[in-house]
Amino acid sequence: MKISRPRGTRDFLPEDTRRRRNVENILRKVVRNWGFSEIITPTFEALELFTLKSGDGIIGELYNFTDKGNRAMTLRPELTAPVMRMYVNEMQANQRPLKLFYFENCFRYERPQKGRFREFWQFGVELIGSNKIDADAEVIALASEMLKAVGIKGSLHVNHLGIIRHLLSVLKTEQQSRIMRLVDKKDDTGLVDYLEEIDAPGHLRLELMELISLTGSEAIEKARQLTGDIPELEEYQELLTLLEAYGVDYIIDFGIARGLDYYTGMVFEIYAEGLGAQNQVCGGGSYQLIKLFGGGDVASTGFGLGFDRIMEICDIEPDDDKPVVIIAMDSTRIEAVETATKLRFHMPVYLDLMKRSFKAQLSYADHIGAHYALIIGESEVEAGKVTLKNMDSGKQELLTIEEVIQKMNC
Amino acid sequence: MKISRPRGTRDFLPEDTRRRRNVENILRKVVRNWGFSEIITPTFEALELFTLKSGDGIIGELYNFTDKGNRAMTLRPELTAPVMRMYVNEMQANQRPLKLFYFENCFRYERPQKGRFREFWQFGVELIGSNKIDADAEVIALASEMLKAVGIKGSLHVNHLGIIRHLLSVLKTEQQSRIMRLVDKKDDTGLVDYLEEIDAPGHLRLELMELISLTGSEAIEKARQLTGDIPELEEYQELLTLLEAYGVDYIIDFGIARGLDYYTGMVFEIYAEGLGAQNQVCGGGSYQLIKLFGGGDVASTGFGLGFDRIMEICDIEPDDDKPVVIIAMDSTRIEAVETATKLRFHMPVYLDLMKRSFKAQLSYADHIGAHYALIIGESEVEAGKVTLKNMDSGKQELLTIEEVIQKMNC
Repeated sequence: MKISRPRGTRDFLPEDTRRRRNVENILRKVVRNWGFSEIITPTFEALELFTLKSGDGIIGELYNFTDKGNRAMTLRPELTAPVMRMYVNEMQANQRPLKLFYFENCFRYERPQKGRFREFWQFGVELIGSNKIDADAEVIALASEMLKAVGIKGSLHVNHLGIIRHLLSVLKTEQQSRIMRLVDKKDDTGLVDYLEEIDAPGHLRLELMELISLTGSEAIEKARQLTGDIPELEEYQELLTLLEAYGVDYIIDFGIARGLDYYTGMVFEIYAEGLGAQNQVCGGGSYQLIKLFGGGDVASTGFGLGFDRIMEICDIEPDDDKPVVIIAMDSTRIEAVETATKLRFHMPVYLDLMKRSFKAQLSYADHIGAHYALIIGESEVEAGKVTLKNMDSGKQELLTIEEVIQKMNC
Repeated sequence: MKISRPRGTRDFLPEDTRRRRNVENILRKVVRNWGFSEIITPTFEALELFTLKSGDGIIGELYNFTDKGNRAMTLRPELTAPVMRMYVNEMQANQRPLKLFYFENCFRYERPQKGRFREFWQFGVELIGSNKIDADAEVIALASEMLKAVGIKGSLHVNHLGIIRHLLSVLKTEQQSRIMRLVDKKDDTGLVDYLEEIDAPGHLRLELMELISLTGSEAIEKARQLTGDIPELEEYQELLTLLEAYGVDYIIDFGIARGLDYYTGMVFEIYAEGLGAQNQVCGGGSYQLIKLFGGGDVASTGFGLGFDRIMEICDIEPDDDKPVVIIAMDSTRIEAVETATKLRFHMPVYLDLMKRSFKAQLSYADHIGAHYALIIGESEVEAGKVTLKNMDSGKQELLTIEEVIQKMNC
């Protein structure tokens, strides 16, 4: 009876997997060189962890379940909440800042569509314990560097929410939240309607609509005309100066809102070339969640990179893993096994496991695209050597095993 | 509000994670050099996939759930069934043998206890498409080599189920299955009772009890006296000859049964030193599941390694990831950022993100055990160089960035 793979999930075949592992390792190298340390958290968590962070509305898109001990659990939809939970439970005494990263799978019950899966992978960092703009700058620059490392070109939009919040400070907290969500969705019609609905002052409506449309080099000056000289603008400029020192190309964009209340200041998003409408590959910002999860008043900043979208467009190939194929006769099978065992400390080696004929073994080597075959016949065994055959040129040499290892450059 | 980690799961802190990644990469290197290719399957599967393989009895220990589309799903308890499902769905046209491996997490709802977790990791291989004893030998030798590569000593017990099945062939299929499960559990009392219950022939009872207690060098001869010259014994001897060519230390053990009906011939288990009663780190054998999942009559052989137990006893340290710490003044902050960005292509670098004083930055470098600090003060900026300070010896040198990279041996 044939069983199907669950809808919206994927099987990764050998070549896919080799390419994914390759990209994963390149990204891991970059993030480790920026001084971040990897952590691993459980695949499922208490449901409460995510409803506390995002509200009950999130349940509709979760893979939640009741476990056999009658506890409400869910497969994680994202990693920031688990990392914060882990920090509160286990790392509060550590020297700050903590620079953590993760590369894990997440789960979201939604209609599968191009480039969106029910099981997907996130590569993310969380920098915990610094409320300085230096931390924000490092985190943004790292995101940019990671994408560069895998050959992805994107435009990085950066904002400081303190500025829009300054403008909205005359409104009620719930009204501010609602507006931030509408700005995040770029729902201008909805926004205008809502401002009408709450009877927002006329000058505020104008100022808000102007502010969120500001981008580019003169945007800071124009924002200053709207808000006056406020510390948030100064901090934002300091951030931009640091980004320049990091060599990061950025776009000032007062319309980036991230839509969730726990973001505190800097926010950014990166849109990549080569994807369709769903082209956001990275989003992040500074936030406060640790207090919500029962920890102290500790600032954090971080981002998540959508690994699956990166895989769609990055220019990294699977690393070549073409093995040496040993060709033996039935009478030299033991020597073939002994030779394979020695060579396998140095290179990938295939051995016949199908009791194929000598000729069929050669065709097999050819078929899988092996660059070298290693022939172990009776005359080779007698000579205490092996014949290395270059499958591309057809050239053969009689060598000792040590010479083969040297020759193969291992 | 503080939220707990789910019972029976773990958070892996930076040092744990570094050590796990290190071991994972060593194992991955070995298995790739043996010519196996990695695959990745979904974290959850249709519940049916596992009940089909192991019966409904398994449901009690699964993390199963009904998804929002009302489908019965489960977190995977093991990887063999998913790999077979994937083979049937996507790889039947591939050149045989297929040599696949995986390193993934699995889930089991059971009482948490020392060394047993509700989320645990398995490293396994499945060799699909060869029914030759050569395939069995390679798979056993690989398991042995993987454990050696991470410094684990264990005893490898190997058996061929064809021999005990030959003895039991006079009994009904269900009776044979029941007996195999009792043998697997080493439940001698239960076995004697059951043989009594089904009124098994007296000579069979004696022969069976003797056979399953046979181990060591004379076991084969004694088995031959019980079963006569059967092809399974010959095949078993061929396997042992190949294992010797691979340099594998094995123990003949006619009491290894694996307890499940889909095992077809060779079975083996490895017990490691340094663990308590739960000391099995590896189990495998040749099996037939592809037909059950709607594919052809294709033989497979494989094993699973318990990664968490391996982590408990292996002698691999986390790789040293001590960064260079850049120490700067407020006035040289931009140059510090620029230097860090260059060095991070070559080595892990920390930059102050807390606006600490010069002195506090040095104590921080000391505190985290950095071997080198890189001082970027005003005089260094003027000279276009940096001061590299060896934190162990206290020695300082004024160097260019290129000299630092060279010096740090990158």
